[in-house]
Amino acid sequence: MFFLAFEGLDGSGKSSLMNQLQNYLSLNNISFIKTREPGGTDIGDQLRDIILVKKNEVPTPRAELLLYEASRAQHVDLVIKPALQNKKWVLCDRFTASSVAFQAGGRQISEDQVNWLNNFATDALNPDLNILLDLTVEESHKRRQKRLLEIGEVEDRMESEANSFHNRVRESFLIQAKKKQSKWLVLDASKTPENLFDILIRALKDRKWLE
Amino acid sequence: MFFLAFEGLDGSGKSSLMNQLQNYLSLNNISFIKTREPGGTDIGDQLRDIILVKKNEVPTPRAELLLYEASRAQHVDLVIKPALQNKKWVLCDRFTASSVAFQAGGRQISEDQVNWLNNFATDALNPDLNILLDLTVEESHKRRQKRLLEIGEVEDRMESEANSFHNRVRESFLIQAKKKQSKWLVLDASKTPENLFDILIRALKDRKWLE
Repeated sequence: MFFLAFEGLDGSGKSSLMNQLQNYLSLNNISFIKTREPGGTDIGDQLRDIILVKKNEVPTPRAELLLYEASRAQHVDLVIKPALQNKKWVLCDRFTASSVAFQAGGRQISEDQVNWLNNFATDALNPDLNILLDLTVEESHKRRQKRLLEIGEVEDRMESEANSFHNRVRESFLIQAKKKQSKWLVLDASKTPENLFDILIRALKDRKWLE
Repeated sequence: MFFLAFEGLDGSGKSSLMNQLQNYLSLNNISFIKTREPGGTDIGDQLRDIILVKKNEVPTPRAELLLYEASRAQHVDLVIKPALQNKKWVLCDRFTASSVAFQAGGRQISEDQVNWLNNFATDALNPDLNILLDLTVEESHKRRQKRLLEIGEVEDRMESEANSFHNRVRESFLIQAKKKQSKWLVLDASKTPENLFDILIRALKDRKWLE
């Protein structure tokens, strides 16, 4: 079993790619869980509201990071580690790399501090593979606008940050991927969902994780 | 202005001592705020419920520590630092020493990790004085039982830990006080409230913090 984290800007197609992989694993009788951060536990879902709902008190940058890490510690201990111990694949929508991208890149907290906290919260558990759906900030913004018009999905507090913030987030994801190439698969999110899924399956087969 | 943290087991008389000091400062036209952890902000109060209310999902030890630290970061940035900048005294019911006592002492997380997190969450802000109301675990338990019978106050999740847990907490407070004696005032909480208050005022006058 393998632990895959799906990373990228909002609107980059993480959900669609995760759904396709979920169907594939089900059809091939491979057991898995699909989860997300912040969230994945009762406490995580409560923290998700505190962090993201715009009408709430705004957390300061350090408090925001600690809230994500609290959600993560609970998630690792109660959900992710038990799933891996039970030989299940874990598909997770955002993980530690998002804290580096959003809190170090976006909010400009020191990357060393974010890394320390990621390591503490996860008890040193890392994804086997981070799958980055790379997209320009302009395209991410367009897709989110479309989602707002089509299904009335309102922007959360992180999504409504300035373009300069999201540019730093994107840049950080790309730098992280470059630093640890063996742990990252970088996909061009402007491709079609079918195309992206084909590339992902091929990459997992190349690693002999799928037959 | 000075930043005082009141520390000790539950039932040790922190509230009573804080109330007496509050009245004294008011009568002497010294401006101050009285606050507490976890809490002190909207987010802090929401986290207080998540951490302490027994019917909720139980946070794992690392998640619990991170929740306290998130509450603390928000509290320092929004409440404590602004009060000190406005020349107000800060009277705070529990602060960083409680995380060392409960999470390192009680839960046995490494003290270095708790110190790192305290430093990060507070942005290196320390109380000018920690006031420890030292009490035996047996006496703390008796007083809490009395509070339950008299005013129906139910034990929270931390209070309902085993005696061995609370013994480690007490021990940690005493060790911290011994290590940094100039930053601690250790009071024997079995004394009367009037007696404790007299000792506190005398100690503050000795430091020339009060006239």
